[in-house]
Amino acid sequence: MKTIQVKLIVIGVIHSPYKRVEEAPRQGTGDISEIEIFKEYERGLTDISDFTHLHVFYWLHKSKGYKLMVNTPWDYRPHGVFTTRSPHHPNPLAYTVVTLLERNENILRVTGLEAIEGTPVIDIKPYIKKLDLKNDAISGWSENVEFKF
Amino acid sequence: MKTIQVKLIVIGVIHSPYKRVEEAPRQGTGDISEIEIFKEYERGLTDISDFTHLHVFYWLHKSKGYKLMVNTPWDYRPHGVFTTRSPHHPNPLAYTVVTLLERNENILRVTGLEAIEGTPVIDIKPYIKKLDLKNDAISGWSENVEFKF
Repeated sequence: MKTIQVKLIVIGVIHSPYKRVEEAPRQGTGDISEIEIFKEYERGLTDISDFTHLHVFYWLHKSKGYKLMVNTPWDYRPHGVFTTRSPHHPNPLAYTVVTLLERNENILRVTGLEAIEGTPVIDIKPYIKKLDLKNDAISGWSENVEFKF
Repeated sequence: MKTIQVKLIVIGVIHSPYKRVEEAPRQGTGDISEIEIFKEYERGLTDISDFTHLHVFYWLHKSKGYKLMVNTPWDYRPHGVFTTRSPHHPNPLAYTVVTLLERNENILRVTGLEAIEGTPVIDIKPYIKKLDLKNDAISGWSENVEFKF
């Protein structure tokens, strides 16, 4: 197993209505979370209010272990882990597109996050339509799934 | 500065026409790259050919340093780093949506990657329209940029 030893910089923390892993919904909800970006990185948020959607990257510090074949709640067949958005990938790196409701200094109010209180945030990138919008995408086994949150 | 010491699992490596950082284009091109997923993780690719687009996460092992305000090649004004897709974020975590052309065992042939030869891959997630397609997104300063690659 090849690994790289890295020091992840924690740029902020998620404040969420979900306090325990069991309470966290599966993907994107209408519930409001707050992303607190630490003051030393606040300047990096300049102009962010002009964006409606953001990519948020966070580290699932409570995630333990993974399997290469995964049972999802959305299908009766198991699927390869890299075709699922399961939180249990080889690296506990989580990624969600959120809707930015409001920025107040170093606090971003968002919907769409499924993370629990205290989850460390490691990056934010803008959702740029010309790069991220793939209208012709076909989503494999999940193509016709009615996700219910 | 808050950090977390982690052991990133390298699940594969990018084989790219770009051999040096200076050769790498800025975002998504039509050039073909190959993602070699190491054999021990190949089973996690089960069913991946049913997807047309993937999120690829990789570690910019040659990236050094970052600034909170960034000059982009796409605008004359500097912008907060978290509103740009600059490779120089606090963590050198890169993320791109790629088009999957073909899977051949543990090799994924894709377009859209801007990484250099040898870049370590740390995760792959499926592009799921119901989660990732934000047709109503407004992309701030980049809304009317004509990205040229």
